[in-house]
Amino acid sequence: MKSYKSMSSAELESELNALRQRYEDYKALGLKINMMRGQPSPEQLDLSNHLFDGIADSGYKAQDGSDVRNYGNPAGLAEARKVFADIIGTEADNLFLGNSSSLNMMFDTLMRAMVFGEIDSDKPWSQIEGRKWLCPAPGYDRHFRVTETLGFELITVPMTENGPDMDIVEKLVAEDDKILGIWNVPVYTNPEGVVYSEETCRRMASMKTAAKDFRIMWDNAYVCHHLFDDESERGKVPDMLKLCSDAGYPNRVYEFASSSKVTFAGGGLSCLAANSENLARAKKYMGVQSICSNKVNQYAHVRFLPTAEAVDEIMRKHAAILRPKFKTVIDILTEEFDSNTDVCRWTNPKGGYFVSFYALPGTAGKTVAMCADAGVSLTPAGASYPYGKDPDDTNIRLAPSFPQPSEIEKAIRILSVCAKITAVEKLLEEKQ
Amino acid sequence: MKSYKSMSSAELESELNALRQRYEDYKALGLKINMMRGQPSPEQLDLSNHLFDGIADSGYKAQDGSDVRNYGNPAGLAEARKVFADIIGTEADNLFLGNSSSLNMMFDTLMRAMVFGEIDSDKPWSQIEGRKWLCPAPGYDRHFRVTETLGFELITVPMTENGPDMDIVEKLVAEDDKILGIWNVPVYTNPEGVVYSEETCRRMASMKTAAKDFRIMWDNAYVCHHLFDDESERGKVPDMLKLCSDAGYPNRVYEFASSSKVTFAGGGLSCLAANSENLARAKKYMGVQSICSNKVNQYAHVRFLPTAEAVDEIMRKHAAILRPKFKTVIDILTEEFDSNTDVCRWTNPKGGYFVSFYALPGTAGKTVAMCADAGVSLTPAGASYPYGKDPDDTNIRLAPSFPQPSEIEKAIRILSVCAKITAVEKLLEEKQ
Repeated sequence: MKSYKSMSSAELESELNALRQRYEDYKALGLKINMMRGQPSPEQLDLSNHLFDGIADSGYKAQDGSDVRNYGNPAGLAEARKVFADIIGTEADNLFLGNSSSLNMMFDTLMRAMVFGEIDSDKPWSQIEGRKWLCPAPGYDRHFRVTETLGFELITVPMTENGPDMDIVEKLVAEDDKILGIWNVPVYTNPEGVVYSEETCRRMASMKTAAKDFRIMWDNAYVCHHLFDDESERGKVPDMLKLCSDAGYPNRVYEFASSSKVTFAGGGLSCLAANSENLARAKKYMGVQSICSNKVNQYAHVRFLPTAEAVDEIMRKHAAILRPKFKTVIDILTEEFDSNTDVCRWTNPKGGYFVSFYALPGTAGKTVAMCADAGVSLTPAGASYPYGKDPDDTNIRLAPSFPQPSEIEKAIRILSVCAKITAVEKLLEEKQ
Repeated sequence: MKSYKSMSSAELESELNALRQRYEDYKALGLKINMMRGQPSPEQLDLSNHLFDGIADSGYKAQDGSDVRNYGNPAGLAEARKVFADIIGTEADNLFLGNSSSLNMMFDTLMRAMVFGEIDSDKPWSQIEGRKWLCPAPGYDRHFRVTETLGFELITVPMTENGPDMDIVEKLVAEDDKILGIWNVPVYTNPEGVVYSEETCRRMASMKTAAKDFRIMWDNAYVCHHLFDDESERGKVPDMLKLCSDAGYPNRVYEFASSSKVTFAGGGLSCLAANSENLARAKKYMGVQSICSNKVNQYAHVRFLPTAEAVDEIMRKHAAILRPKFKTVIDILTEEFDSNTDVCRWTNPKGGYFVSFYALPGTAGKTVAMCADAGVSLTPAGASYPYGKDPDDTNIRLAPSFPQPSEIEKAIRILSVCAKITAVEKLLEEKQ
């Protein structure tokens, strides 16, 4: 088949009629498929149904002998911190275990910076007029919303296949002391599935920043969320705490992770990792905020998943459920677009929860709206960009984890038809 | 026996010698008893060991059919909100369920005020130089520490048997627009065990405040923590949300409660209750902070305690364990001090977790230190006052929940001996 860009107006008109007929046929099916958010499926959640088995008669004692049902141990059970530390590749002493939400720990970390400042700040960040934050995009909408809500101007940094464009990042942070930090999902970025290269990590750890209290938010949300079993296909990044320390900026990075997509979404554990100085300071305030996190849940998790190896084992089961879904997305897109990858393209991630689809620039919003009319809910176009605005109106985030493969096939067929219709319409417009 | 205050110096000297001998005898026992904090005992925690029974095969479905293992439902399960609402006497719609710590919800509520201001504020509270907070004392040390950490000047308000001295409160808040709020534990105050009178509640709800964004923090921590079964002996206060609304100040109060002393300490549920305007605003920010709280824990709790009646039933079991411990404290104090209630006095609470003991003014710190030397750890003297400083050096908080009755008897004997020694020493000093 000829590529759309090489077609005449007449050929495009003919293709458009065929596509519109397909669209109406899909619409008539009255589908209702949700691919909006990165939610685990019931089959994945079933893997952890036995999280609390045997807990009633277990004695509820931590390895240090303390009673997990009572107050105390604010940093969390040592054995649970060990598992998280092994997963993210740092030391258990660097870790504080929170409740279920790592987003909550990120928000709280920045709220503390707002009210109290960082250890190397001249004043609380709330007092810095015109404060700014770097947002590699496309990226995670909830990250961006946190810093937007806290009054930061969001500065978009383009993503490359190795992470954020470090030439641009280095230039910006060297020149502007109002830029106080940067968001990152270093392994399997949301929604690109990019794994940061070691060079990206090193440059970010060692770059000169005009703000002396510049902070890297390192959200290792998908650190163990591989789609493939082969070690060589698994994304990983260096220990960023160590990189920053080695580069002479030991206070630069806060790292986060959670088990929301290991056990239960919103019902797992989350952690904050930081160097000793930052962690001591954070603990001082967190000790005022709360007596301790939910240690019963920590205890249940460590009984269920006692080691990083046990986590890897359950993650392989998650992957076995997710892999065919991602394969369906990629296979259908490949088949549908055939030689038209010059109007649309997509990522083929090795982990994480998303496929990033690029419609012909200027057509993403319209494509998503047409999908919605045909019963397929996608993440709003632009959601992966600061302020929800994709300057090129091209990116659509696909979340294949929740629906069944048969639903995914239909959804991706419909997305393809809609993306082709809007592309052909645009090409026709341009020919007029 | 003659009261100490009526004794001659010679009589006091003789008494002191006898007391010192008793003290040395106790010291020789090498005891180690911890009465520092209001922790439930293992026997109480055992009452909830079966919290998660049957959950694995239960389907994990909320009453609305949603999957509690997945993201969503940020305000918490409706059925769990209903139980909390029934307990604190308000509507489920006024309620937001957090994770395990109500202190965390209080801290976060004030952090939001610091960064974003309240709905009726002219500016964020962090921008109000010289901000102040009212602290009825003796009160809960962790409350005071929150507002101290957030840069408020702590203003002590004396407690009466009906709650804070409202004549003083009304005068202060009417005159000073830097006073932005007040801490309260309305039922069974920590450590007095006082239940606020209805008049206290009404006056606080309707008083004129110079600050238009004045806030009442209403920590209903012990709302269902009665020691006695008889309804007439059970402390309760009116619905403060309704009182404030009726008085024309609907935004004035935030209410909190938790199940830390119902199921597991630090492993239960907590709630924030507010009027619709405050709650909508809080939810806006909490929706940025986190996707949802731990709904699996909410689900387990509602399976275990499906109604307020079920909560009352488990609270009667707690009371049956706690009552003899409180009785031991009161009985030993009564016996030891006999006619010397003019040098020492104590509260006899009908609920909550504490007995408040008053040593002869000027002797509390020394008494606590002597107890520590004899192996009895008490809450540091002064802890129940702003900045940890009791101006009269008289109050000692006793927490009888954790130790066994036999330990409590020994601890209170030792406390009595120490309090008598320091009192007699002081009386002798004064005679010189």
